[in-house]
Amino acid sequence: MMAHRFSKLSSGTMDSFIMGLVEVAARPGMISFATGLPDNSLFDVDGLAKASCDVLRDMGGGALQYDTAAGYIPLRERIAARCSKELGFKASWEDVILTNGSQECFDLIARMFLEPGDRMAVENPGYLGAIQSFSAYGPEFTGIDMGPEGADAGQLREAISGGAKLFYSIPNHQNPSGNSYSDAVRRDVAAAVEGSGCLLIEDDAYGELGYRGRAGKTMKSMAPEDTVLTGSFSKTISPGMRIGWMVVPEWMRAQAGKSLEAMSLQSGSFCQKVVDRFLQEHDYDAYLWELRKAYLAKKEFFLDAMEDCLPDSMEWNDPQGGMFVWLKSPEGTEAMRIFDAALERKLVVMPGKPFHVRGGGNTLRLNFATPSEDQIREGMKALGAACRVILG
Amino acid sequence: MMAHRFSKLSSGTMDSFIMGLVEVAARPGMISFATGLPDNSLFDVDGLAKASCDVLRDMGGGALQYDTAAGYIPLRERIAARCSKELGFKASWEDVILTNGSQECFDLIARMFLEPGDRMAVENPGYLGAIQSFSAYGPEFTGIDMGPEGADAGQLREAISGGAKLFYSIPNHQNPSGNSYSDAVRRDVAAAVEGSGCLLIEDDAYGELGYRGRAGKTMKSMAPEDTVLTGSFSKTISPGMRIGWMVVPEWMRAQAGKSLEAMSLQSGSFCQKVVDRFLQEHDYDAYLWELRKAYLAKKEFFLDAMEDCLPDSMEWNDPQGGMFVWLKSPEGTEAMRIFDAALERKLVVMPGKPFHVRGGGNTLRLNFATPSEDQIREGMKALGAACRVILG
Repeated sequence: MMAHRFSKLSSGTMDSFIMGLVEVAARPGMISFATGLPDNSLFDVDGLAKASCDVLRDMGGGALQYDTAAGYIPLRERIAARCSKELGFKASWEDVILTNGSQECFDLIARMFLEPGDRMAVENPGYLGAIQSFSAYGPEFTGIDMGPEGADAGQLREAISGGAKLFYSIPNHQNPSGNSYSDAVRRDVAAAVEGSGCLLIEDDAYGELGYRGRAGKTMKSMAPEDTVLTGSFSKTISPGMRIGWMVVPEWMRAQAGKSLEAMSLQSGSFCQKVVDRFLQEHDYDAYLWELRKAYLAKKEFFLDAMEDCLPDSMEWNDPQGGMFVWLKSPEGTEAMRIFDAALERKLVVMPGKPFHVRGGGNTLRLNFATPSEDQIREGMKALGAACRVILG
Repeated sequence: MMAHRFSKLSSGTMDSFIMGLVEVAARPGMISFATGLPDNSLFDVDGLAKASCDVLRDMGGGALQYDTAAGYIPLRERIAARCSKELGFKASWEDVILTNGSQECFDLIARMFLEPGDRMAVENPGYLGAIQSFSAYGPEFTGIDMGPEGADAGQLREAISGGAKLFYSIPNHQNPSGNSYSDAVRRDVAAAVEGSGCLLIEDDAYGELGYRGRAGKTMKSMAPEDTVLTGSFSKTISPGMRIGWMVVPEWMRAQAGKSLEAMSLQSGSFCQKVVDRFLQEHDYDAYLWELRKAYLAKKEFFLDAMEDCLPDSMEWNDPQGGMFVWLKSPEGTEAMRIFDAALERKLVVMPGKPFHVRGGGNTLRLNFATPSEDQIREGMKALGAACRVILG
């Protein structure tokens, strides 16, 4: 047989490490702090069952039919209204494009703007799944250091001077670090991109999961023509319904619609109708406050367990939203060895290194949203033991 | 503001014409023979409502969670079993990759294999939506004439000698022509691709909609290592649930999984679970026979109306499955003018020319699945009047 050769860009696509760990974590007896799964038990199963039935009863076969490429219009109107009410900028429903999770937004944006070899700025550490998506288009990544106050705006300016066409950013409760941008950094970043020719991708996946409300103003509100904001119901309502979206400037609408159509025609409109119905029948803000309360309690429980079980040489932060704690072993030590030692003890954690363009060998990402309290207690003992074995 | 420049490939992506017509067709008072929508009234609304509730009741929050990248395993097992039972080849569930409709398969395959400027063979006429998807990767298309017996295998051999890396084919009840490949053409095409370095994409979207059963053997059964078969529940169960799939040779699994993950992480697993449950509780073959019977009756009604209303100078075929009739005005006349004249009479039809790499100016595609009987009667009168105005 003559071989079929894979294209250069597809064979050069990064492995993400993440989905591999999902499979390891699913093995019987494993405890996982590794993945980015929200807490199953917080989904409103009954509310979504009712919404599914109501949609089918009221719309009949129309609920199951194709819809417009950019998605179910009432849900897009609802998201646009929330942009005005909560996110600080005006959007029309025509600016809101529904996608198969926000992962599809990253692919769509990369496709629209990147030529192989183009420069693109990413946070260091940054969200691996998105970076994998961009990597399929062959850009040169420039890492912008991400600290407790957010991305380093000076490094970003330099990257833009060097020709970066895109900057991918998670300003709220970042994946992986759990950190958010300060107000000053938001202003600096928005000023850096505005009119610069560099497009800002503002990933707001965790924006609605601030335990005391939103962590700060959106950069989309400060540099609207140069920013695409992406959002998702995956962390709040259901990941398996796969409803992500992007809010684009008007100049991008037509190209985004055409590219989306070429990629997947449209994403699942049945689930869009179900979630729209669910939001019609529930007070989303009240729903979110319950969710935030539950995740805050879970985080506190998790941090207490860390305090109890981990050696003093380990350091971690206290995130104000989202699902992740960022853990560091002493400078110069190899967190990958802690990962291995934890795995032997039936605990899966996520090494921090794959999230980095440079450095990060001494970091780990811990998800406190997925495990139960019992699993947290037991898993943290395993992690403590693993740290002690490696660090001595 | 400094302009953001779209990438060459994305700005070169073809417009598909299709989704634009969906919006025109949705205007009040319009009758549409234009789009590829199945008949709403044939969906099993109650069965899917029950399956949705059952899945949520039995699986709880797990039904709403992320799943593995390639999709819900029980549904992949079910599709693999159907490949053995109905499609004439053995597949493991690991060969079955669930996607956001089969459109996502086309994008995924193009991404895996095409470099800009590569040659690729497509049917002439061929399915526009897929060709649009491929066009985003910048190939040179070679048209393989598609007649009543299928694609011209001689032209395909020549295209393969000329370096075609992919051949996109709909052997059953093709979109747009409604024609199927004869047994001889299937054998010839399979022999032409086998071991040639050209990968066959066998789009089976309409394979289950043969009014008297399947139109012929799959080419995947004849050249399994060189064929990817794509399928979908969009024409049989629900387009809005967006469940497509591809059955890949084992050598392609890892790359397909990685590329899918980069594109969209995974497609909607909630709907995958719902459809799996639906198939568990229903005899799919009995369900399909009801559907085939209904479409056959609709086609007969449609052809009768054509006979009654269209001038003798128009020619059309009698498809044995699927949703489309292929209509020709006399050689040298412009069917686009018939399209315009029909639109003035509130009927939307689909010009055939956009489905062609060359020729086809005198063709139209008519969908008989979407309109009701009343709409067929009224729409056909409008089409007859439009033909007479244009042809004199």
